[in-house]
Amino acid sequence: MTKGRLEAFSDGVIAILITIMVLELKVPHGADWATLLSLKDKFLSYALSFVFLGIYWNNHHHLLQATKIVDGRVLWANLHLLFWLSLVSFATGWMGENHFAPRPVALYGVVLLLSGVAYFILSRVLIAAHGTDSHLGQALGKDTKGIVSLVLYAIAIPVAFSLPLASAALYVAVAVMWLIPDRRIEKTMAP
Amino acid sequence: MTKGRLEAFSDGVIAILITIMVLELKVPHGADWATLLSLKDKFLSYALSFVFLGIYWNNHHHLLQATKIVDGRVLWANLHLLFWLSLVSFATGWMGENHFAPRPVALYGVVLLLSGVAYFILSRVLIAAHGTDSHLGQALGKDTKGIVSLVLYAIAIPVAFSLPLASAALYVAVAVMWLIPDRRIEKTMAP
Amino acid sequence: MTKGRLEAFSDGVIAILITIMVLELKVPHGADWATLLSLKDKFLSYALSFVFLGIYWNNHHHLLQATKIVDGRVLWANLHLLFWLSLVSFATGWMGENHFAPRPVALYGVVLLLSGVAYFILSRVLIAAHGTDSHLGQALGKDTKGIVSLVLYAIAIPVAFSLPLASAALYVAVAVMWLIPDRRIEKTMAP
Amino acid sequence: MTKGRLEAFSDGVIAILITIMVLELKVPHGADWATLLSLKDKFLSYALSFVFLGIYWNNHHHLLQATKIVDGRVLWANLHLLFWLSLVSFATGWMGENHFAPRPVALYGVVLLLSGVAYFILSRVLIAAHGTDSHLGQALGKDTKGIVSLVLYAIAIPVAFSLPLASAALYVAVAVMWLIPDRRIEKTMAP
Repeated sequence: MTKGRLEAFSDGVIAILITIMVLELKVPHGADWATLLSLKDKFLSYALSFVFLGIYWNNHHHLLQATKIVDGRVLWANLHLLFWLSLVSFATGWMGENHFAPRPVALYGVVLLLSGVAYFILSRVLIAAHGTDSHLGQALGKDTKGIVSLVLYAIAIPVAFSLPLASAALYVAVAVMWLIPDRRIEKTMAP
Repeated sequence: MTKGRLEAFSDGVIAILITIMVLELKVPHGADWATLLSLKDKFLSYALSFVFLGIYWNNHHHLLQATKIVDGRVLWANLHLLFWLSLVSFATGWMGENHFAPRPVALYGVVLLLSGVAYFILSRVLIAAHGTDSHLGQALGKDTKGIVSLVLYAIAIPVAFSLPLASAALYVAVAVMWLIPDRRIEKTMAP
Repeated sequence: MTKGRLEAFSDGVIAILITIMVLELKVPHGADWATLLSLKDKFLSYALSFVFLGIYWNNHHHLLQATKIVDGRVLWANLHLLFWLSLVSFATGWMGENHFAPRPVALYGVVLLLSGVAYFILSRVLIAAHGTDSHLGQALGKDTKGIVSLVLYAIAIPVAFSLPLASAALYVAVAVMWLIPDRRIEKTMAP
Repeated sequence: MTKGRLEAFSDGVIAILITIMVLELKVPHGADWATLLSLKDKFLSYALSFVFLGIYWNNHHHLLQATKIVDGRVLWANLHLLFWLSLVSFATGWMGENHFAPRPVALYGVVLLLSGVAYFILSRVLIAAHGTDSHLGQALGKDTKGIVSLVLYAIAIPVAFSLPLASAALYVAVAVMWLIPDRRIEKTMAP
């Protein structure tokens, strides 16, 4: 029951976040291609963030699949993750509005980094609740991909100030790395 | 469980998309009929897109009803569909704002076409996961309506540049074709 | 399953509609009471529409509780209802923005009337699917309240042109009538 | 069934409320830090309201976990709570927009107070439905935290007119008090 509502609430919030980002693509007044093309950077930012939120939904789903115990700490660690994810839409809008200018690209990385840290905290809180010998503990075990992502974000943020596009390329690289579906939990869970 | 969350997440996203489109109907300042009538094209665009998203929800529902296996590829094919559907709201706004001008009508067709292709990909990924001999494989089998829709969109897009209203009429024709409820899966599933 | 998704989707859409209306209460720039008071009519419109959508959610809930069969016609009758409900937010905004001017108050009544008609159609489609001898058929039977509401809306619309506040009072009267919980189905269903 | 839909609808509304607040963080045009810093007060208001809505979701969840009977009065007491919560987003925006000016801070307290009262009413309606000897009645029993919160809001509102930041500090204190997870029901329910 508790787990069901946690999943439903998280799905609801992520579904809304992934959807309201499109409201930043404000409908322009002209009807020519030049007007449409002026939205290119906003569109690319939107597409990238759509993929990131899709990855979080996907991973969150896998994480909770292996979860059995949900207590107050899990609920708050989960809300903490949703808080940082809720700022992705703002950071996306700022980055697109300013055509990948250095500071907005750096801020985007900061939001991704803090979301990644929040996800890490959530997974540790879950392991603490289940025990490291549990299925969940073994399945999450090392979480190499998660740590690599955090390192890449931490590199991308300072890089953004001199080479914002290189920084954006790093974000794309992280997204691509995750698009390869996460089979860690599935494998360990298989009989 | 996995299928349940996939359905719930997709329902959530489609419910939000179908609803936030109404935000494009910005409340005007005057209180006379002329002010209201100036929103006519936005309203018609909204009504058309509401029907299209309703059709997608309906078909998605039928598709998943026959689904048993949900893996990473299915999750991403589904997110890919939701991505293009999320752009319907923008294309609707642009088309209504510009009173069915050629380029916005063409773009609307492009978004419908890409949504249709994404739906086609999702159904093929599902068939690949279940096998062509499965209930799902047999039920979806030819998907004549789906292919006819794609062909009509592909015709409507170039037509939009010279005859945008003819193009819009084609979109309406596709919608009407789908409003006749899809009994393919229901039939094959019947005992 | 089908009924579950229909309920979930309808709940989702109504939850979004009831919530995005608050976005029409645009945050004003001044920090004094006069600024806040200038939003009074928007607030009253919002509160009224919140109650109406609450009533629809409540009644929809009772209606589906007694439902066993969900087919294509039910799905579309339900989407038709959601379409008109989705316009409540626009009509609310227009009415509040123009301080209960005649035409916006009339339009608000038109949207309520069409929502009421759509609800009536949905209930008839459900009765047709279940048979008039079914629990559902007997429970809905006469639907006096529903018919009284439609009559009051039909009176309120022309009245709005000369006495908009009298018209608004009629809407409030309908809302109050429904706030008394609908025990028809519960009673008939009781053992 | 009824309880499930009540939970799902409430979760949906709270998920939307907690998410659309971020839309008040309007994307600014400049790309420098000064532009970003000008949003500081909006961000702090957003974070505080995110925590408050999270607390309500959390408590609502605990409350309904112990609930067995859902009737018309419960549905309306719940909608009444959601109504006041829906105004948190407006009050947050006004407070952030005006950099914690006296009146907006007072209004924020009024909305929190009315939400708190609505929650109190909901819990009393639930106890009335279940009986004071029920698990729910015993578990909620005194509700010290709830009463302390109401008292602190009632103090914070007049204080806001002379010392708005002291008032805001009181809101933070209430939030911190609730962040300590509510184990009352869990304890009583434990075997």
